[in-house]
Amino acid sequence: MVTFLSGGTGTPKLLDGAAAAFSPEETTVVANTGDDVELGGLFVSPDVDTLLFQGGGVLDRETWWGIDGDTHRTNAALSDIAAAAGLPDGPQYLSDEKQTAGRDIANWRRFSGTAEFMTIGDRDRAVHITRTSLLDQGLTLSEATQRLAGAFGLTIDLLPMSDDPIASLIHTDEGLMHFQEYWVAHRGEPTVETVEFRGSSDAEPAPGVIDALEDTVVIGPSNPVTSIGPMLTLPGVADALSQSTVVAVSPFLGDDAFSGPAGDLMEAVNAEPSTEGLATAYPFADAFVVDGSDDAEFDRPTIQTDIRIDSPDDAARVARAVKSAIDIVD
Amino acid sequence: MVTFLSGGTGTPKLLDGAAAAFSPEETTVVANTGDDVELGGLFVSPDVDTLLFQGGGVLDRETWWGIDGDTHRTNAALSDIAAAAGLPDGPQYLSDEKQTAGRDIANWRRFSGTAEFMTIGDRDRAVHITRTSLLDQGLTLSEATQRLAGAFGLTIDLLPMSDDPIASLIHTDEGLMHFQEYWVAHRGEPTVETVEFRGSSDAEPAPGVIDALEDTVVIGPSNPVTSIGPMLTLPGVADALSQSTVVAVSPFLGDDAFSGPAGDLMEAVNAEPSTEGLATAYPFADAFVVDGSDDAEFDRPTIQTDIRIDSPDDAARVARAVKSAIDIVD
Repeated sequence: MVTFLSGGTGTPKLLDGAAAAFSPEETTVVANTGDDVELGGLFVSPDVDTLLFQGGGVLDRETWWGIDGDTHRTNAALSDIAAAAGLPDGPQYLSDEKQTAGRDIANWRRFSGTAEFMTIGDRDRAVHITRTSLLDQGLTLSEATQRLAGAFGLTIDLLPMSDDPIASLIHTDEGLMHFQEYWVAHRGEPTVETVEFRGSSDAEPAPGVIDALEDTVVIGPSNPVTSIGPMLTLPGVADALSQSTVVAVSPFLGDDAFSGPAGDLMEAVNAEPSTEGLATAYPFADAFVVDGSDDAEFDRPTIQTDIRIDSPDDAARVARAVKSAIDIVD
Repeated sequence: MVTFLSGGTGTPKLLDGAAAAFSPEETTVVANTGDDVELGGLFVSPDVDTLLFQGGGVLDRETWWGIDGDTHRTNAALSDIAAAAGLPDGPQYLSDEKQTAGRDIANWRRFSGTAEFMTIGDRDRAVHITRTSLLDQGLTLSEATQRLAGAFGLTIDLLPMSDDPIASLIHTDEGLMHFQEYWVAHRGEPTVETVEFRGSSDAEPAPGVIDALEDTVVIGPSNPVTSIGPMLTLPGVADALSQSTVVAVSPFLGDDAFSGPAGDLMEAVNAEPSTEGLATAYPFADAFVVDGSDDAEFDRPTIQTDIRIDSPDDAARVARAVKSAIDIVD
């Protein structure tokens, strides 16, 4: 049994070849939900969705979000209507009082849907509507995710990290904004001052998460701050990780992140914005998998391989390196 | 100045030719909102939408709802996901406690969006998302409607009947159901026992409605019970109508309704399910426009013409008859 901790791009890429080393039937994936938002009344869970679409064989692998070949009729019409009605584009937060008035799970991350600043596809949207409706019918996010995982025919066991609201908020020189506004609307350009996981002090890991962390844990090449960071704030998670075998795959090639704003965010939390920073970010890690060209030095076992993942074959190579690292420390 | 009271089919059909007798710039249309529902988190206002799409020149005139040429990708995907997840199709009310927990305007008519029992098009959906978001931003339904009317370039002045929730609930031999469940999901087949406009005792007419009723009022060939009936329950509306010139166009050809379940519903409220019943339904009417073949007798002036409307020319003919009736009683 193995458990992957996943954001929305790096770790899903690794999972594309994970079967070379780990049986999908014996794999659990815990997904970040700090990036989730409520947009125009719909609860969107981007990292969970990427894993659903990947598991269902429908993921758009150019973008690593959305459904391959999806249309965007509603999203385009929202822009048209907003333009015709003189409504602003870009992210529009609902008022402060609305931020905690509604579904608890959406607290502190509620956006108006006018002009819809995130590009949601037409089939993609049906997932958000179904999830939102299941939440409104009284299911937890875990339960709704399980129903969707069944619909998409997932072989792995997919768990959101929590059924409680945890909002990844970025304090920047341009003000406080949710991660999706920082990343989607501002392309990660504002200077990051600090990162806040609002709600984490009152949140619990979702059912099954702590149990899953008793298995060997793989931290994929996801953003240590905003993809893995929110999980580490949940009570019991760091403790569980310190007692399990944990292998972390670097999301850096030297000082460069593969994807996303990992470097800037690492600096904001006072970690080295490079592979070396992983030792700070993941003190519980028992071994690391880093790039063959990386001269980072660790006091823990380290496997080097070509960690760039552009294909399932690449992913299989990295997965085998992860397995080697586990075998060394287990 | 003239004010039309409108449901979702008959009166919009008449409006297609109304310019033959009434200047669009001097026309106000008050739309029924008793049929509105919240579906999968989105607030849908079917009669308002038909008037928006008609005014914007994009209405699907085969169905008299939705946007001409619209696709239905999300709606189809919702069915696919529901089938794959083992979720039921057909209308799924949210729990009793959820019915009054959320946007007030949606009270007593909240449905899960799983399997989406109403067929919502992809461009159509953008209107619902925009409306819902404007409501969540703090606009009233009137204000949101005005923004949408601007976006669609409406010439007429379109007012929802109320900014408060009024839910048209049908008590049937198969249980209590919202009008949309009765009509869309059950095709008007259950036996109607009574009709309830829940919320009407606490509701107010929307801003501008009572003023608009001081002008000459035309009640189009809409369902007297569920399209016009909800308006008549609003405080001040019946009084205003009794003081204005009111001409009603029959929605019946003898005992047959043009469209919709008008006949069964008239019986349920103890009115004759035919043209004669209009005298009961509209005691404040000063004149009627009925079909040339209709032998109904009224104690008020009556204009006969061919009232079937299959084209803008038909609509123009009926509009001119309405104008003649107004001229007689004014």
